[in-house]
Amino acid sequence: MVAASELDCLRVVLVRTRNPLNIGAAARAMSNFGFLRLRVVNPYEVAWREARSAVGAAELLASAEEFKNVAEAVADCALVVGTTAAGRRELQLPLKRLRDGASLVRKQLASSRVALLFGSEKTGLSNEDLSHCHWLMRIPTREQHPSVNLGQAVAICLYELARDRKALRQPEKQKPATAGEVERITGMLLDALQSSGYLKPRSAAPTQEKVRRLVRRLNLSAGDAEVWLGMLRQMVWKMRSGKEK
Amino acid sequence: MVAASELDCLRVVLVRTRNPLNIGAAARAMSNFGFLRLRVVNPYEVAWREARSAVGAAELLASAEEFKNVAEAVADCALVVGTTAAGRRELQLPLKRLRDGASLVRKQLASSRVALLFGSEKTGLSNEDLSHCHWLMRIPTREQHPSVNLGQAVAICLYELARDRKALRQPEKQKPATAGEVERITGMLLDALQSSGYLKPRSAAPTQEKVRRLVRRLNLSAGDAEVWLGMLRQMVWKMRSGKEK
Repeated sequence: MVAASELDCLRVVLVRTRNPLNIGAAARAMSNFGFLRLRVVNPYEVAWREARSAVGAAELLASAEEFKNVAEAVADCALVVGTTAAGRRELQLPLKRLRDGASLVRKQLASSRVALLFGSEKTGLSNEDLSHCHWLMRIPTREQHPSVNLGQAVAICLYELARDRKALRQPEKQKPATAGEVERITGMLLDALQSSGYLKPRSAAPTQEKVRRLVRRLNLSAGDAEVWLGMLRQMVWKMRSGKEK
Repeated sequence: MVAASELDCLRVVLVRTRNPLNIGAAARAMSNFGFLRLRVVNPYEVAWREARSAVGAAELLASAEEFKNVAEAVADCALVVGTTAAGRRELQLPLKRLRDGASLVRKQLASSRVALLFGSEKTGLSNEDLSHCHWLMRIPTREQHPSVNLGQAVAICLYELARDRKALRQPEKQKPATAGEVERITGMLLDALQSSGYLKPRSAAPTQEKVRRLVRRLNLSAGDAEVWLGMLRQMVWKMRSGKEK
């Protein structure tokens, strides 16, 4: 369970982001999942200006904090976690799978601020950036294509952090049809099958049982059972009235 | 565990996508998580051309299949799942949280093809699109900002599908009917309802969609689907031949 105060303890830190669309996408995902505190470190200036003038998540971007370096951006956080595709270099830090890392982040958020760092599109986090991190998280991807788009990586990480929240709205379960209702449908279907010539007028018990099992397997709701009964009744009426002509 | 063959059973279906960047982002996420089978339904033509000429996930886009409508795009799939922000309208379908829905999708992938539908950026999936779905999945977001960017939604859904490496695989005893088979039953049932006078000869789209949903809810096995089709065909024949007398 992620409480509102815990959402408020996360700092999403974008380091040297170059593409305004990615800044916008990150901000939108933050807004979707309720993490509203964005920090940027040395963003590409044009990108930052463009992103802030774009539509969507405007308030979140307007209140974003800008820093000259990672050290300052994470100074008030008790836990600093880096994200990585972890393909290119020897990592000096523990590397956790996103689901395991997110669980640790959630625990920490209950009592203190956590910074979650995302590096630039081209080079990710530098060794200097990484030296500020306690450990690293990685989105599990296939080896042939490990590098996740920045906006999508932010979205996936925040989804995982918010994932264990309680269900928001569960639709009410459909009341199932009673055995009596199902049996009426079975009877009506047998009538229809006999009227149509699909079954002989007085079919043997094994055939009737086969049809009964067929109808049972539909697992009808009470509402749907009534609809099916009405439809079959109409067909039986039609077939019989046709015969009489 | 999501095995390679299971990854291969998923069809990501983008319906009427307008933004080439979103098509590219969807394709990239698919490649990241190893789901390589993309289908597009009536994409905005310029967007589709631009997306296919863009760099990254080029092979995946080149092998994408194009369809005129949702019915054709899902015809060979046994389970059809829609995605929705579920804010705007009364949904006629069961709505599951992503984590629960993804678990069901994984189970189904062990034995048959599954289509995962994503609607257009502006309007999502239409009621007609939805009538082809067995149920819907929703990414849990905060109420104030429920609408997730398309490329990010695809990334999050595929992450969740690939996330649980230890999920048990119990292949279903009964092979489920494909969407094509279910659609044939829907058509035959509509014929029967019209022949019987239950529905008007040319019923409006909402009625047809209602019948389509009714049949989807039966969750027929391939074997039972064949039996129902035969029964309905016989009834239609009988009602029509009765009329001619």
